[in-house]
Amino acid sequence: MTGATARRRGRPPRTEAADTRDRILASAREEFSERGYDKTSVRGIAKAAGVDSALVHHYFGTKEQVFEAAVEVAFAPALNAPEAIADGPLDGVGERFTRFVLGIWENPTSRKPLLAILRSAVNNDTAAAVFRRLVATQLLRRVAAQLDLPDAELRAELAAAQLVGCAMLRYVIKVEPLASADLEQIVARVAPVVQGHLTAP
Amino acid sequence: MTGATARRRGRPPRTEAADTRDRILASAREEFSERGYDKTSVRGIAKAAGVDSALVHHYFGTKEQVFEAAVEVAFAPALNAPEAIADGPLDGVGERFTRFVLGIWENPTSRKPLLAILRSAVNNDTAAAVFRRLVATQLLRRVAAQLDLPDAELRAELAAAQLVGCAMLRYVIKVEPLASADLEQIVARVAPVVQGHLTAP
Repeated sequence: MTGATARRRGRPPRTEAADTRDRILASAREEFSERGYDKTSVRGIAKAAGVDSALVHHYFGTKEQVFEAAVEVAFAPALNAPEAIADGPLDGVGERFTRFVLGIWENPTSRKPLLAILRSAVNNDTAAAVFRRLVATQLLRRVAAQLDLPDAELRAELAAAQLVGCAMLRYVIKVEPLASADLEQIVARVAPVVQGHLTAP
Repeated sequence: MTGATARRRGRPPRTEAADTRDRILASAREEFSERGYDKTSVRGIAKAAGVDSALVHHYFGTKEQVFEAAVEVAFAPALNAPEAIADGPLDGVGERFTRFVLGIWENPTSRKPLLAILRSAVNNDTAAAVFRRLVATQLLRRVAAQLDLPDAELRAELAAAQLVGCAMLRYVIKVEPLASADLEQIVARVAPVVQGHLTAP
């Protein structure tokens, strides 16, 4: 993935540079997770990665761009999801979308970076813009495009709203009984709603 | 309301004390809104209200308790809502709940304190606990109690999840086309879902 990223950005695939980039990205994810967008600085990321701030700027640019790169890595599995969600019978798309989103939140390892992104997006307009670009443009629009239905984008967003709200109340605010409810019970109630948003006439 | 609050807390309804309490609460709301839970201090609230920190502690207790009191005031209209939401034909409860929640978010004046609470709750576990007590216990359980249906609490929470997610994507993250969609169009799509969560067999 590192080599691919480096190539995509037009740099020669040198191993040392790739390692440094990776180390900076890992530190950035850690810093943004721990401190949130506002309290994270390029200097702090550089220090945690054991490099000079100038090198962080050289590889990524501004703090917003470091954030976007870090979020993009955390989001990489999700960005391959639209095809998987759309792939299969249309009457199962609601359940596939629901299982995909709740599956990410259910797993503590994938929940952590997502929570960090959500926290930053709720607190800071720049981080919200990054979240918007990645989630809306890359994830939801691609789900919508494959549905090929009128109002597909609004439909995908309202479906996502049900899932985002579930994640908020279950994993972040931890409201009971939702927080302790069996995942299958939630899927059974939520998947038909997501399906309805996406495909109901 | 001030007199009522003072009486409810068992203090004599002295005007000067009530004024001071109000001033502290107003400063607390402002500080929590501007800085978020983590960065707000009792000292900062006291300074903004022009009183000594000891007086803030005397009236409210810990920072968490000041936060809860400030949130409670911001939430006061919502806490009277369950009866209004439940009042009327059962097949209109989804639309009444939807219009109530989106109505608060639609109005910039009532959106601001709600956004501050949401930001704090997403970022801080103590603030999340306050949000949980107020929203879950006081709002959702009372809606659920009046529905008198099996799994009423989980139903109310999944309905709320749809509305919370809508609010997040429309007013906080501002995903398009949802952010600019006509409110009536959203109500038309979301109210039946909320109704289904609350009352479908």
